Amino acid sequence: MNVPEELIRLILGREKKFLIATHINPEGDALGSSLALSMAIESLGKKTVVYDRDRVPESYKFLPGYERFTSAITASTIEGAPLILIDCNEPERAGLDNLPISYAAVIDHHETEKDFGDIRWIEPDAPAAGLMVFHLIRNLGVSITNDMATNLYTALAIDTGTFRYSNVTSGVLRAAADLVEAGADPVAVAGGLYETWSEGRFRLLTWVLNTLDIDDRTAIIVARKEMFSKTGTSGEDTENFANFPRMMKDVDVSAFFRETEDGWKVSLRSRGKFNVARVAARFNGGGHRNAAGYRVSSDLEKAKKALREAIADYA
Amino acid sequence: MNVPEELIRLILGREKKFLIATHINPEGDALGSSLALSMAIESLGKKTVVYDRDRVPESYKFLPGYERFTSAITASTIEGAPLILIDCNEPERAGLDNLPISYAAVIDHHETEKDFGDIRWIEPDAPAAGLMVFHLIRNLGVSITNDMATNLYTALAIDTGTFRYSNVTSGVLRAAADLVEAGADPVAVAGGLYETWSEGRFRLLTWVLNTLDIDDRTAIIVARKEMFSKTGTSGEDTENFANFPRMMKDVDVSAFFRETEDGWKVSLRSRGKFNVARVAARFNGGGHRNAAGYRVSSDLEKAKKALREAIADYA
Repeated sequence: MNVPEELIRLILGREKKFLIATHINPEGDALGSSLALSMAIESLGKKTVVYDRDRVPESYKFLPGYERFTSAITASTIEGAPLILIDCNEPERAGLDNLPISYAAVIDHHETEKDFGDIRWIEPDAPAAGLMVFHLIRNLGVSITNDMATNLYTALAIDTGTFRYSNVTSGVLRAAADLVEAGADPVAVAGGLYETWSEGRFRLLTWVLNTLDIDDRTAIIVARKEMFSKTGTSGEDTENFANFPRMMKDVDVSAFFRETEDGWKVSLRSRGKFNVARVAARFNGGGHRNAAGYRVSSDLEKAKKALREAIADYA
Repeated sequence: MNVPEELIRLILGREKKFLIATHINPEGDALGSSLALSMAIESLGKKTVVYDRDRVPESYKFLPGYERFTSAITASTIEGAPLILIDCNEPERAGLDNLPISYAAVIDHHETEKDFGDIRWIEPDAPAAGLMVFHLIRNLGVSITNDMATNLYTALAIDTGTFRYSNVTSGVLRAAADLVEAGADPVAVAGGLYETWSEGRFRLLTWVLNTLDIDDRTAIIVARKEMFSKTGTSGEDTENFANFPRMMKDVDVSAFFRETEDGWKVSLRSRGKFNVARVAARFNGGGHRNAAGYRVSSDLEKAKKALREAIADYA
């Protein structure tokens, strides 16, 4: 992976302060990458402001230094500091639309047609922004501390499903090995990522799995509003639910319907070549080949029927 | 990891045929390690017989070359070939008690007080026998093929929970990286390991999770005989069920009660320092600190109560 020379020069150069920002609704890759880069830059004797419009989710408060994140910045707090935008590639995705940005570098692994940024480092083949930041930090000549390693390992682990997804490369496994040597603890990270459920969330999952409805290799599961109220949970607790039906060998597409104020939020997952992004597009949604989503306002039975028809059309 | 010189000399020496055997009820590490070593030895122009007393479980038939396993051997089929015993360390564990063994090498990562074998290579710190076989094959000077890589990657992945358990080291991550470069496909392996459930098994899991009973940081789930008959499943389908309640942050011990012909088989899982092997020992069972088990013949409510009392005593 080639780290752009100009990005290294920007960070090592005369600037004394940087604004690091990532996307709204941040997850482990966004958070871990931003925190590790903040720590690396500060180890050079410089300052950073780490911004997210949204708060750090409870489930990520095991990340060392998570309290660096602030959602309160103004033109005067950032004092014209250059922006380093991580895991997204336009200021709107980070809720930065109203801030004057003098100079910006983008570090992202999502394909894009946008052209925001004075330095644009986009690696669509990188499994995680964390892998890019790992190489950046090495190229800065900074030695990776325990805390940086834990943040970066978390970024790699979450975006590869602990090395289970199709984006796993030998490069990401080697970086993970280096991070373990630098002090990351795989079992603590996996525990932080996967073993922090509340009892309510677990009971919600059980209830949702009870709604399983399989037809023609498509599995549908549903979370109704009353399930949230009766288990003391919220939409945030359903992260990853859509993946469960994929455990079945006879399921090609898994759909999770979550009831919202004005209808249903639908998360689609598929295995192999089935492209659920095309299905989601039919309902004005979007995503990737194996993970996509959309929203509908019709009633549940109608919405399920429409989805099954769309899948049959594309199959 | 130091591969014993005498083991390398044995394999590269004048012997033309080897008996490779592993433990009864084989899982991914036992199977993948044995198959990879068989392929490596055969690439040297020698013969191997690969033995398991039990058949290869359906769920492992994605392993390349699984049909090498035979359960039918006699003194005359093996013709005095040296035994290489993998992932266990005494012939009884492999159902080999009645066979004449002229010479034996043991490759295992389980601690033991036994002394079977002319060559004994035991590495209790190795996360998988597959990691030992990986280093052995390299030391034989054999280049690792796609099929060997897939078998060895599976061995590493299953025994580390795809790099989530406390046995993950930088060494196993580096070996995994090398195996990806040699042709192992992480997503195919994870799919083979984790996405091959039948619909019946999925419905059984849902039913079992519905029985959740939590008290004082101990979670108990139950599979009754009728659940198997109504979902068309069997005891084999409950592998890994005991781990699910561990997802909850307020659970220290997870217990899975499975009804058998003559009572209950109890699987215990714990996190961190809680030693469930000590609890299992009270019921004449055994295991490791975070995974243990035992059998009881009393009725369910009595058995649950006895377990909760034993846990309270040790907590």
